[in-house]
Order: sequence, then C-alpha cells, then structure tokens
Amino acid sequence: MAQASVDILLGSVLAAMDNFGSLPLFPLFDWAHFTLMVIDLRNDAGSGANALSKNHPLVCWFCAMLSCFAGAIFVNFLLGQPLLYFFNNHVRVGLATVVWYLVFYCPGDLYYKTMTTLPAKVGLVPLKEVIRARKVAKGVVQAADMYPEGYLIMIIIGTIQGTGSMLMRNVERLLRGVFDKAGNELMKPSFALKAYALNSCLMVLQREGLLGIPFSHLLLYITIAMATIKISMLLFHLPDPFSYVEATIRPLLFGKPISAAAEEEKKEKAKAE
Amino acid sequence: MAQASVDILLGSVLAAMDNFGSLPLFPLFDWAHFTLMVIDLRNDAGSGANALSKNHPLVCWFCAMLSCFAGAIFVNFLLGQPLLYFFNNHVRVGLATVVWYLVFYCPGDLYYKTMTTLPAKVGLVPLKEVIRARKVAKGVVQAADMYPEGYLIMIIIGTIQGTGSMLMRNVERLLRGVFDKAGNELMKPSFALKAYALNSCLMVLQREGLLGIPFSHLLLYITIAMATIKISMLLFHLPDPFSYVEATIRPLLFGKPISAAAEEEKKEKAKAE
Amino acid sequence: MAQASVDILLGSVLAAMDNFGSLPLFPLFDWAHFTLMVIDLRNDAGSGANALSKNHPLVCWFCAMLSCFAGAIFVNFLLGQPLLYFFNNHVRVGLATVVWYLVFYCPGDLYYKTMTTLPAKVGLVPLKEVIRARKVAKGVVQAADMYPEGYLIMIIIGTIQGTGSMLMRNVERLLRGVFDKAGNELMKPSFALKAYALNSCLMVLQREGLLGIPFSHLLLYITIAMATIKISMLLFHLPDPFSYVEATIRPLLFGKPISAAAEEEKKEKAKAE
Repeated sequence: MAQASVDILLGSVLAAMDNFGSLPLFPLFDWAHFTLMVIDLRNDAGSGANALSKNHPLVCWFCAMLSCFAGAIFVNFLLGQPLLYFFNNHVRVGLATVVWYLVFYCPGDLYYKTMTTLPAKVGLVPLKEVIRARKVAKGVVQAADMYPEGYLIMIIIGTIQGTGSMLMRNVERLLRGVFDKAGNELMKPSFALKAYALNSCLMVLQREGLLGIPFSHLLLYITIAMATIKISMLLFHLPDPFSYVEATIRPLLFGKPISAAAEEEKKEKAKAE
Repeated sequence: MAQASVDILLGSVLAAMDNFGSLPLFPLFDWAHFTLMVIDLRNDAGSGANALSKNHPLVCWFCAMLSCFAGAIFVNFLLGQPLLYFFNNHVRVGLATVVWYLVFYCPGDLYYKTMTTLPAKVGLVPLKEVIRARKVAKGVVQAADMYPEGYLIMIIIGTIQGTGSMLMRNVERLLRGVFDKAGNELMKPSFALKAYALNSCLMVLQREGLLGIPFSHLLLYITIAMATIKISMLLFHLPDPFSYVEATIRPLLFGKPISAAAEEEKKEKAKAE
Repeated sequence: MAQASVDILLGSVLAAMDNFGSLPLFPLFDWAHFTLMVIDLRNDAGSGANALSKNHPLVCWFCAMLSCFAGAIFVNFLLGQPLLYFFNNHVRVGLATVVWYLVFYCPGDLYYKTMTTLPAKVGLVPLKEVIRARKVAKGVVQAADMYPEGYLIMIIIGTIQGTGSMLMRNVERLLRGVFDKAGNELMKPSFALKAYALNSCLMVLQREGLLGIPFSHLLLYITIAMATIKISMLLFHLPDPFSYVEATIRPLLFGKPISAAAEEEKKEKAKAE
C-alpha cells in the first residue's frame, strides 16, 4: 500500500520532470529575466543612469531591448540570420518595455528599490536560470539544425545564448557614448560564461545520446545546479567554483599570470634603462 | 463645359498622382541624393576634409559609398541579407563615384561651392525627399515580406531606410579614425528620425487598409509635407516641429531632462562632500 | 627523339600546371598560413603580447582564430552568411589551435624564435601565397554565384579573402582592449591589398573568358609572381612596386598629399590668427 503511493508520487515527479522542457516561459520567467537584465543595465550605467534615462530615453530603451534579447541578437548575427527577429514578438517586446519603464521611471523609484533587495534577488535568480538553461538548449538546437556535425559551433552558440547580455554590454556602452578599456567577457570570463560553456557541452553530449538521460531531466538538473550555485554566491559571497580548477590547470597550460604590479615594475625598469 | 474641363484637369492630376509611386528615380533624384550625402560627409569631416581627401582617397571614397547607400546597407545588416548588395548596381555606384569625385576634387572646388549655396539647397532638398519617401516605403515592404505581422520591424526598417546615413556616420567616423563621444542619432534623435518614424507608421497603416487612400497618394503627401517642412527649416531657421509635442509629453513620461550645468553642479557637490 | 622527350617533359609540366588548382592545401599550406597569421598577431600585440597570452588566454585564442580565418569571416559578414561557418571544420580549427599554442606557449619560445628567422620566413611566404591566391579565387567564385553580373562585388570579395586578416586587425584590437587611431587598411592600403585587388580583376577577366588562359595557369602565375615579389621585398627591402605608378597617377587624380608637417603648420597659423 505504502509502496503504491510512493510509486504514484515518484510517477508524478517523473512526469513533472518530463514536462519541464515544455513549461511555458511567458510571462513569469520572462518578467524575471527582463527585470534582472534592465537592473544590470542601470547598474552598469552607474552615476550616469539618471542622465541616460532623463536626457536620452530612446537610447536607454534601445539598450534595454538589446540587453533583454542579447542572446538571440548575437546568435542571429553569428549565424547570418535577421538581427531584428525578436521584434516580431510584440507581446514580449511590450513586456520588456513595461519592465524598462518601471526600472527607470517608476514613481519614488519603488520598483528598482524593491527588486534590488536581497529577498527579491533570491526569488528572481532561480526564475532567470530556468529561462537561461532553456535558451542555451534552443541555441544548441538552432546550431545543430544548420551544422549537424558542428559540435564546436553548437557549444559556442549555446554559450552565447546563455551569456549574450554580458557580451552585448560593450555594444551598448558604445551606443551610450561610454568608451572604456575595462575589458569584456572574453578578457575576464565570468562564472556564467564558464558554466554555460560546460552546460552546452553536456547538452551536445545528450543530443548525441552519450549521457543516457532524457533532455528534460538534463535541463532540470542544470537549472537546479545553476540556481543553487548562483544563490549561494549571492548569499555567502562564495568565489567562482571554477577558480580552483583554473588555479591548477592554468599555470600548467599558459604559465603564471602576470600581476598588474609586476607589469608596472617591468615598464619602469625598461624606462630606467 | 467648364465643369468638363475641370473634370479633365482633375482626372489628369489624379492620374499623375497615381503614377507618382512608379516615377523613375535614376538619374535626377539619385544625383540629388548622392550630392547631399557626400556634401554632408565633407561637412562632417570639417577641417579634416582636406587631409582625408588628399591623403586617404580610398577611405574617403568608401565612406562616400557608405553614406550614399547607408539605408540599404543598414537594413540588410539588420535583416541578415548581403551588405554589399548595392554594389551590384554598377550604374548607381558609378554615379555616386562621379558625385564623390566632383564634391572632393572638382577644380576650383566649383561643385561644392555651387551646391552649398542656398538656392541649390532649396532645389536639391525636395528631390532628395522624393527618393527618401520611396526608400522608406521600400523598407516597409521588404520587412513586411519577411514578417507579415511584424509591425514594429516594419516601422524600424522604414525609419532606418530614411535616416540610415545619420546612423552610418558613426561607422564612417571609426573608419576615418575619428573617435568622438559627440553622440549618435539614437542619443539625440534628429527631426528626420522622428518624422520618418511617423511616416513609417502611416505607411504600415496604409498597408493594413486603415487609411483609405491609395499608396501613391500617401507617398505624394509625405513627400510634399517633408519637402515643405525641410525647406521652411532651411529658409526661416524654424525649430524642429516635434519639439512642441515633446516639451509637453516628455516631462510626463520621463521626468525633466537634466541640464549639463545641473549635472556638473551635482558632481561638484558630491566631491565637496 | 630529343623532341619527343621535350614534348613529354612539357606535357608533364602542363599537366602539373593544370592540377595546380586542385592541390590539397591541408595540412602543409594551412600550417604555413596559420603560423604567419599568429606570428603577426603576436607582433601586433608588441610588448603587450606577454600579458595577453598569460592573463587573457581566451581572448588570445579567439583573436588567433579571427586572424587565421579572417577572410572567410569578413566575406560571410558582407554576404549575409553565417560568420561562424569556419568552426564547422574541426580539423582546421584544431591545427590553428595547435599553431596558436606553439607560437605563444612553446617551452623556451622555440617555435616563435625559429619561425621568425629569415630562412623560415623565406620558406613560409611562398606556401602562404599558394593558399592566398586560392582563397581569392574562392571569393570570386562565391560572389559570382550570388551575383553573376556583380563584377565590383567579385573584386571586393576576392580582395577581402586575400587581405581579411589585415582588415580584421582593428576588430581584434577592440576585443583586446587596445584602441588606437593608427589607422586601418583602408587608410593606408598595403601592398597586399593593391596586389590582390589587381589579382581579383584578373580572375574576373579570366572568368569572363577575356584572358585566354585556363584558370589553373592564372592561379599559378599569380602565386609565383606574388611569392617572388614578397620574398624580394623581404630580402632586399624593396619598396612597394605600386608606389611608382601611384606617384604618377595620384597627384593627377586627387591632388598632392598633405604632409603631417604642413598640416601642423596650418593649424598653428589658424590658431595664431
């Protein structure tokens, strides 16, 4: 009797897991994603955010759209597809516009203040990771449709779908008239870039039937793992988990990194000579 | 009798209006467009124009081509089409090259001096507006062919077809080695950008059968309106007609713009504290 | 009898020439091309090469790939094709990665030191010219497939296939966080740009049947001519052979170039006034 109810429970859990891949993303997950993206944009503008939103609303809106749909735009650029495709979905663009308006122009700045509190962040991050894992999967499929044997392309496109907004930041800064040499995602790969490169590899392996688990389950595992790590990093200020592996492998492969101080010293020596 | 002759007159006017959409643009209208575009390029280079044309003729020619065909290049980029498509029309590229040569290297600088006089401008502007309205219509159709329901894409592509050269300016400046933070069309939208965004909306409405007038007439009305406003702005230094509407709506939607002076003051205060 | 053996010899030379166009490029020629490209990248980074390779291996690798496949990427961008196409060929990407690793991280820096000696360069340059001429031919064919009458497009695409890495340099510099106004290929066209523009014209003429020699022979002549000139320039520091023609035509067409000194003087005068 007890066994039977456990079986039923297990069965329904498995059914829920199987359906995870077809969960509708609109509007809840999309809203969480857009909110975090536009908040990132505002934080990136820093002290210039006020001037940006009040003096240049058009470029502010456009940068917000670029952030919200960055993965799709970047991937379409790299695959020679229409860059503006995302504008075809008026409902999602409308939702992104509402979120943009709330973040930048909400009376009393209530929306931004609420959404940047720690509890709100802890709630939004897992929702965003659901959408992110799904986008990575979509990227792998899109690349595989064009190049069935192009495993490298699949991994790159998957990674970009997951981290497009960080790569898009430099384009946005150019549009906003802010030049800086502060670097880009390729110079200082973030945790998300490394993690989604790894996840893309797993998805390619699953596609080739080498993992032995259904796609829906893999997606669920990735989402849970990413959400857990991200929240732990947020709450306990944990360092990037890849840094331990890197610290071992990097010196072997590429030699010891040069610290900025050593660099400076060298230059001064060169000058003195 | 008098009624009959009025009818005949009206009939021929209507016939002329119906044919407005299929008026051949080459070579007169193209020539006016290219001339204004290359003059804009030379004015944008300012005191560097002499060095640009004499020391770097290749980049000067290439920037002139980018200016002359900016709308088509930008639109093809955004829709994932070949960017170099315009080079397929050798006759138009040839005409643009002749205009470029005349503007930059005409003996005694006669061409530039003649074409920048007020009467010449007053003659060229309406010719250019004919080509511009037609290009906007072409953009709307091109977008509608790809995305029959993508009204937002149609409006964006139409606007870019009309104002591409201003958006292309920043690309050109990069090629010419001139970096500046002076901003772009998105930061300080010009009258043309706003007007052609509005015109693109009208063309989309006409396409959907909501305006109740044939396409040829709409094109004619837009051309006449734009030419009239542009010439008035040129002759009487009128301000941007949209500025009145903006002055009312903007503070409601986005709050009062921050003046540069106020910005500076704030920074100083922040420093003093 | 002697005549017969001469005939046999001539026959086999002709057969070899006919087969020149279908010589397999992988791996010898590709290796030479990749080696020269990655060495160019390292030289361009100059004193920053050490920091680039040790602190930012990802961006270093990516820039190396951009250099190695620059022609294909640029051409695909201009023709609206997938930019990442080259990643589909895993073997070539693998070879390029090995070469990149050897150039930047070889113990004792042996690879770089060996490959930048004069004899190594003299050996690598002709191998690279073989691949370059073939790429230019491929570009002309690719453009002709899309635009059978687009002679201008064929010439541009052919030229870019041959000189893409030099045009890509500015993109790479941006990625590496190095801004400079030092100019680009369009501002100061190199010998290779001019030579491959000329070669593309010859290939278009051959395609139209106006040269009267088979394609394989044209390819061979171009390769031999380019290799000879390049090696002479390397060994005897000969100036750009086009400079003589330019010195005659340029002043007639575009007026005398302004020297930097004259420019400065002018500015000072303007200030003094």
